[in-house]
Amino acid sequence: MNEFELIALLTRSLATNSTVVTGPGDDCAVLDLGAGWRCFLFKTDAVVEGIHFLPTAEPEKIGHKALARCLSDIAAMAGKPLAALVTLALPRGFDPVFVTRIYDGMNALARKHGVAIVGGETTTNPGGILLSIAVLGEVEKNKCLLRSGAREGDAIFVTGELGGSISGKHLDFEPRLEQARWLADTFPVHAMIDISDGLVNDLWHILRRSQVGAELFAKCIPISRAAKLRKEITPPLAAALGDGEDFELLFTVPKGLAVALLDGWKVQFPALRLTCIGKITGGSGLSLRDKTGIHTLESNGYVHFS
Amino acid sequence: MNEFELIALLTRSLATNSTVVTGPGDDCAVLDLGAGWRCFLFKTDAVVEGIHFLPTAEPEKIGHKALARCLSDIAAMAGKPLAALVTLALPRGFDPVFVTRIYDGMNALARKHGVAIVGGETTTNPGGILLSIAVLGEVEKNKCLLRSGAREGDAIFVTGELGGSISGKHLDFEPRLEQARWLADTFPVHAMIDISDGLVNDLWHILRRSQVGAELFAKCIPISRAAKLRKEITPPLAAALGDGEDFELLFTVPKGLAVALLDGWKVQFPALRLTCIGKITGGSGLSLRDKTGIHTLESNGYVHFS
Repeated sequence: MNEFELIALLTRSLATNSTVVTGPGDDCAVLDLGAGWRCFLFKTDAVVEGIHFLPTAEPEKIGHKALARCLSDIAAMAGKPLAALVTLALPRGFDPVFVTRIYDGMNALARKHGVAIVGGETTTNPGGILLSIAVLGEVEKNKCLLRSGAREGDAIFVTGELGGSISGKHLDFEPRLEQARWLADTFPVHAMIDISDGLVNDLWHILRRSQVGAELFAKCIPISRAAKLRKEITPPLAAALGDGEDFELLFTVPKGLAVALLDGWKVQFPALRLTCIGKITGGSGLSLRDKTGIHTLESNGYVHFS
Repeated sequence: MNEFELIALLTRSLATNSTVVTGPGDDCAVLDLGAGWRCFLFKTDAVVEGIHFLPTAEPEKIGHKALARCLSDIAAMAGKPLAALVTLALPRGFDPVFVTRIYDGMNALARKHGVAIVGGETTTNPGGILLSIAVLGEVEKNKCLLRSGAREGDAIFVTGELGGSISGKHLDFEPRLEQARWLADTFPVHAMIDISDGLVNDLWHILRRSQVGAELFAKCIPISRAAKLRKEITPPLAAALGDGEDFELLFTVPKGLAVALLDGWKVQFPALRLTCIGKITGGSGLSLRDKTGIHTLESNGYVHFS
């Protein structure tokens, strides 16, 4: 049983109550706790030694990554993070200096975004370091961006450049909080997600929740330098389409606003690329158009070239 | 380095912001998010295979325990739990039925207390099952009970009976949410905590945060049947004083209200024992009075009999 099958099984009949606006299945849960114009965002995420980082990783980067993954999910809803709790499971005989440096990385990122670390839990984990973080955030009710709002005729945008994050970006990426809030404040964004599972997989999350299809333009996909340097291992376009952990924003806006968005973005965030990579269609599949034709993209990231 | 030394090191300089009313060091963090008469409570806790439960434990009880520990912390602040997130780290080759049954136990407890399980995270953990839960709750600002409010002259009370929870109670205890809210609504409770580290250790948490001392009366300590049955392993009084994971409420009220409290409690919760076990003093130590004299109780749970 893979992770997605397990999640489907476990979320079939979860306990719920009247505060839940959006439960499992989006980047964060959305709760209406009767606080006026705001909803609250609630998210947890974990990193595990040997899976999300190697024992040789700089500890500051491990702490940074663990918190940044959660903040990226808050960004994907156009929210503002408020407070975090940290669960740190350590093997016996851990090095206190190493652990302190994990917290240094986490605290630095928290301070940068005004997040309070308000507590946590330390416990023993025989298998290695596991760091689980829960974050509480807030968002204006009318600006919360879900995966489910994409519509036929939307243009699809992505921030930054994609692929090859394994070369380093997966440990020191910046969550796109400021960019996401600017987008929600300035344009009628229809759907948004952060790219954690890879462009194709995460676009599929939007398509399924929105019940639409999409077409991507191969020549427009922004391929990172890291992906190009790894071309002997993975073709750069395949890396940009399939690699996980880029933590860029993927979102859709009505196509008529595409030019205004690109112009506004250049003024606001001159150092960060924004690219229109395709369009939402009325169908139900995802395809990639290149100079040889149109290719189907399955949600497992595998590209069926015809 | 033990757990308490590590926590002291890590919490020396955590990132914070203006929403934090109470950070690390109480049963929950308390956040003022500008929601009128309410504060929010934020708590995380983890259980690990081989430490908090054995591989042979019933999976429903593992799920129950993981959530109940967090709800007990919400109870200790006299709060109401609203929503929970679940991080489930599983070894490779896990049994989906076992995992589903963990969730069954968690969902049953969540439904009983009106808590929504709004998402979570599954990941691989080579060393065994680890279950980390984060809970968000709320409490009226003027009814939130901290560890720090105990005053000289308070009577010390404990719910239920103590000791020997290892025989079974540690897996199927009921968080005292209803009792804690009734207490906060009805009496001017000065300080409260749930007993997770053992009576003596948790009373010490109150004493340190309140800067007071206390005296316990040996003959008043309510010793559980489980502790009495284990008398060959641990003297029952020592078990009631030192054993962890009873998850009963330990609290202080002005001594003049002790009789009214006991009378009111009997009407409200006839099936659950409430016992006055001692008094808060103006000093700085914790002692136990028995027929042989007065004995010092250190915070490590070790009893120095003279």
